[in-house]
Amino acid sequence: MPPHPLPSKTDALTRRYGPEAVPAAGPWNDVVAHLLDHRSVRGYRSDPLPAGTLETLVAAAQSAATSSNMQTWSVVAVTDPALKAAFAQIAAKQKHIEQCPLFLVWVADLSRAERLGKAEGTPLEALPYLETFLVASIDAALAAQNAVVAAESFGLSTVYIGALRNDVEAVARHLALPPGSFGVFGLCVGYADPAAVSEVKPRLPQAAILHHDRYAPRDETVHRAVYDRALSEFSRRHEMAQYSWTERVITRLGKAASLQGRDRLRGALAALGLPLR
Amino acid sequence: MPPHPLPSKTDALTRRYGPEAVPAAGPWNDVVAHLLDHRSVRGYRSDPLPAGTLETLVAAAQSAATSSNMQTWSVVAVTDPALKAAFAQIAAKQKHIEQCPLFLVWVADLSRAERLGKAEGTPLEALPYLETFLVASIDAALAAQNAVVAAESFGLSTVYIGALRNDVEAVARHLALPPGSFGVFGLCVGYADPAAVSEVKPRLPQAAILHHDRYAPRDETVHRAVYDRALSEFSRRHEMAQYSWTERVITRLGKAASLQGRDRLRGALAALGLPLR
Repeated sequence: MPPHPLPSKTDALTRRYGPEAVPAAGPWNDVVAHLLDHRSVRGYRSDPLPAGTLETLVAAAQSAATSSNMQTWSVVAVTDPALKAAFAQIAAKQKHIEQCPLFLVWVADLSRAERLGKAEGTPLEALPYLETFLVASIDAALAAQNAVVAAESFGLSTVYIGALRNDVEAVARHLALPPGSFGVFGLCVGYADPAAVSEVKPRLPQAAILHHDRYAPRDETVHRAVYDRALSEFSRRHEMAQYSWTERVITRLGKAASLQGRDRLRGALAALGLPLR
Repeated sequence: MPPHPLPSKTDALTRRYGPEAVPAAGPWNDVVAHLLDHRSVRGYRSDPLPAGTLETLVAAAQSAATSSNMQTWSVVAVTDPALKAAFAQIAAKQKHIEQCPLFLVWVADLSRAERLGKAEGTPLEALPYLETFLVASIDAALAAQNAVVAAESFGLSTVYIGALRNDVEAVARHLALPPGSFGVFGLCVGYADPAAVSEVKPRLPQAAILHHDRYAPRDETVHRAVYDRALSEFSRRHEMAQYSWTERVITRLGKAASLQGRDRLRGALAALGLPLR
């Protein structure tokens, strides 16, 4: 359980949605309180993790569902300071990658199945397809999320590093990844620097993302205005600059250049043996 | 917590890896015991869920990390029997989709950002890229996995339905999904039919999927032989036919035809306004 006491149901829902959009949630327990209390942390103490922590996190990760039990993912546990420095550089200088004692790179890995096919004398026709790539990427995500839940239950903090995709070829070189695999994202794991722990970040109202039987967006501009206010308040208290959610989405998606190299992802994956047919 | 007692650390690890490959896991608590106890369930009672369960699961889902807080996913809660029957048909007649009281379709959703851009008079250049599609699909997976953890903590069972991708265009029609969005996978939620609950399914030894600082597969054929034995035993006890993991992977990936329509996924996504540039 986290180092601070778990919030009550009302507190947890109010923090997550703001006082204007608390949903009518039903059943509640400590596991759910713990899930709602998640926050991404971008500053770490250098303290090492207790012995066997990595193996516990990986056991949690492998316990997530995996499509047809194919287990098309791997994970590289990075502790080498030179490697962490290289990944921080690729990820637009996110210093927490160097600070955290354990940096996990989650790998969508079709290379293991390819080796299996070769060893058995049976080439696997389905490997080059977009579908198989997507299965591997999704299964890596399900596994990683279980590791996050486990880590936070021990009072550890985490943050996903999607910016590893700024240069998937460089990541593959650094980790000696074989063709047919790529680093989907990184994950910092460690004890939070208390100065880096913020409040729980509010999310869109449930009415904006939850539909019943058919997709039917209603009152989206109203929901967005409510949420823009909540996120402006949050960013004013916790970040360098105050911004609304609308501004944030436009900054992040307005220009192809804001993808920071990830606009070249498709070609880079093809070069790594993932043609996404 | 699940309806049955949580396993001890030794029992949980032995069930998950088989007696020949128990990893040297460290820290342990009830949350982790609960994660390791996961099993996918393919048979449900018709009992309804307690009031507010859906809203609690969605609150857990929205508490997962999301890339740059963009929240590029939605979820459609399906309870209409006609819709569930249609989805069961798409998913190669998986009857549990019709049995379960709640079927969640997790949607990678770039359409909300597109509407935001239009409302603000700013077209979003980054939307048509593979990177943005991947962010949406991964964030839907992280969210769904939190919902699974929450559901299981209430004694509910789940199973992911990747076979919705057999025909993503039909799914989009049934749910009236707008261009720029697609159903990544489904998720059955409900109370397990006791006859449908199997043991925990063993996974590959940690040595086969966990690497340190560099990807370096070692003794893969040995690990695979150990695992083939474990999965043969498991399938003999719990499934129609006995099979090894090696046989399973070859069946699933050997022929493009075994993708059951998902070999056309790339074209189908383009037709749904997701060009994956």
